[in-house]
Amino acid sequence: MSQIDWHDETPVPGLPPTLEWVGGLDGHLRLIDQTLLPSELKLLDCHCAEDVWRAIRTLQVRGAPAIGVAAAYGVCLATRQARNADPDSFLRLLKTSAEHFLTARPTAVNLAWAVRRVCAAAERALARGSSAAWEAMLSEAHRVAQEDRRVCQQIGEAGADLVPEGGGVLTHCNAGALATAGSGTALSVLYAAKKRGRRFHVYVDETRPLLQGARLTAFELHAAGIPVTVICDSAAASLMRAGKIAMVIVGADRIAANGDTANKIGTYSLAVAAACHRIPFYVAAPLSSFDLMLKDGDAIPIEYRPGQELACSCGRQVVPAQVECLNPAFDVTPAALITGIICERGLAKPVTEQNIKQICSPAPCTGLDAS
Amino acid sequence: MSQIDWHDETPVPGLPPTLEWVGGLDGHLRLIDQTLLPSELKLLDCHCAEDVWRAIRTLQVRGAPAIGVAAAYGVCLATRQARNADPDSFLRLLKTSAEHFLTARPTAVNLAWAVRRVCAAAERALARGSSAAWEAMLSEAHRVAQEDRRVCQQIGEAGADLVPEGGGVLTHCNAGALATAGSGTALSVLYAAKKRGRRFHVYVDETRPLLQGARLTAFELHAAGIPVTVICDSAAASLMRAGKIAMVIVGADRIAANGDTANKIGTYSLAVAAACHRIPFYVAAPLSSFDLMLKDGDAIPIEYRPGQELACSCGRQVVPAQVECLNPAFDVTPAALITGIICERGLAKPVTEQNIKQICSPAPCTGLDAS
Repeated sequence: MSQIDWHDETPVPGLPPTLEWVGGLDGHLRLIDQTLLPSELKLLDCHCAEDVWRAIRTLQVRGAPAIGVAAAYGVCLATRQARNADPDSFLRLLKTSAEHFLTARPTAVNLAWAVRRVCAAAERALARGSSAAWEAMLSEAHRVAQEDRRVCQQIGEAGADLVPEGGGVLTHCNAGALATAGSGTALSVLYAAKKRGRRFHVYVDETRPLLQGARLTAFELHAAGIPVTVICDSAAASLMRAGKIAMVIVGADRIAANGDTANKIGTYSLAVAAACHRIPFYVAAPLSSFDLMLKDGDAIPIEYRPGQELACSCGRQVVPAQVECLNPAFDVTPAALITGIICERGLAKPVTEQNIKQICSPAPCTGLDAS
Repeated sequence: MSQIDWHDETPVPGLPPTLEWVGGLDGHLRLIDQTLLPSELKLLDCHCAEDVWRAIRTLQVRGAPAIGVAAAYGVCLATRQARNADPDSFLRLLKTSAEHFLTARPTAVNLAWAVRRVCAAAERALARGSSAAWEAMLSEAHRVAQEDRRVCQQIGEAGADLVPEGGGVLTHCNAGALATAGSGTALSVLYAAKKRGRRFHVYVDETRPLLQGARLTAFELHAAGIPVTVICDSAAASLMRAGKIAMVIVGADRIAANGDTANKIGTYSLAVAAACHRIPFYVAAPLSSFDLMLKDGDAIPIEYRPGQELACSCGRQVVPAQVECLNPAFDVTPAALITGIICERGLAKPVTEQNIKQICSPAPCTGLDAS
């Protein structure tokens, strides 16, 4: 399967693919280094697995669907050297590499989902030898990327009419093209609404500590011609009180069976405020972000990142030395605060275990059932 | 009246006065340049009114009570040159200078209150000539500062027993020694609780965009030996959900007659989350922060600061050029979300117009009724 032709229909003119496989069997993964945006648009070429692992860990590539795609390619890079080894050796390396990638970031379930898919593809083909297994893996990684692109479009279509004409829309962090191999999740909904002629103004939380809202979402939306204003995370509730917000829409890193949703730290705070002001609060995510093995949000592992991300702001030490910083990267929003979850199959609303079970049936491709 | 002897009983060992008048009639205002903390503890000597005005505007000195004291001294500096002029000329300069200081920052009512006090003192003494009027002004400015110090201690005493033994306390921005001429408002309560042997852990929001929580509150509390952890503003609600917070306490910039309270942007968001989690939410403020002329919070003027404070983080442009940033410095928390207001006369609880009227009677010194 060939690499993604991302350029057509992109909602963000001038933006290269967030990540893409460049070349054939001897190719590599190229991605936008998102830590440098918006001041610098630089592509990072990852020729080995460690490059990809580090890019995920340091958020050079981020966003649940995008790190799934990146990890899928990362496992391909990790095992390419064993293409000519015997199947047992290949399999051993495959398992070690897959496990290593699972340690890069714990919360987004898409990473594990994508890694499982490429592993399953390799195992199915292993009877035909290591080389065939590896090629099957790479094909599966391409498929993961290509499906993500299609799924993003479907999410956009499914949610577009929820965007209120003339209203203010609040979003948090970045759930856009930069978070996926396609047009995004939450932002895909906004891109689709714009395409349908809907007019609205987006307020985006800057999203401390790493400012994905200020740096990435503002960049994307502005480039796409959607009016956008950046606010401090802490200003969102008072904007709601002032009647400026008609809808909140965010992405997700993992959704439990009952609809409890892990997403960027601060999402829960928005959901509480939205409920208090009776503002609809939507989550937009692909089925690959659902983890039906987990009963509820309490079981979702939350990544704690170094306190230094708070203590040192753009190179300046802003917290006194010896003072501790607590830096959870995600929080969990209980299903009861979520108006609806938009996925590629439509809208789960209200967010109940039953509705989630229904929208997830049949189960999305896991690699175990693929041809 | 002599300058404040701040050093004894300070809860923050090693910290020089947040602001103090240095010298006699030919003296000047010295203050800690808070924009440089915590990395640099530098004193700024303000020899003319413009120095003080700029220090207030740029937040080199901040915190409602502290900017009141600073502005009182600022008006003294502005009019010192007219000491030998005729009373009419002196009065004209006084009025112009006072009006100019009112433009420095609009939300904290303490600024106008302190400026009114020194103006009234001058007007009362003006019959004895410009020089006597000016000296009366300086004495009144000293009195404003000295009273602030006493009031801070009284607020601490009034609130100390509200601090839950063994609990987590959340605060926002800086309502400490650095925000007053004394030991603070919200933090004075914590200092007094510590003195009574109460043990507790403070979580402080970093407080975007200018990071007063990360830079100033963490600095103060750590120096005072109170365990403190810095979090992102957006993490507060999820900490509440996790049961880590037993009390929220913040300062105030202006309190309307019905108890609606303007304070640093993000306070409203915390109050909403605290109510949702049934966590007591206290405001600590001197009577000089009450503005009974305003019926409710809708009438409180909210300062909007340059978007560049968000767009440029510690020298790095983090928001794309051409994207607007909305930067309200304050928000209003409705009285219904406030468990109680702690002031130098005790606790107004519940926060009703009646209780506020009662605690404000007789009216605190306005300068109009002083000897």
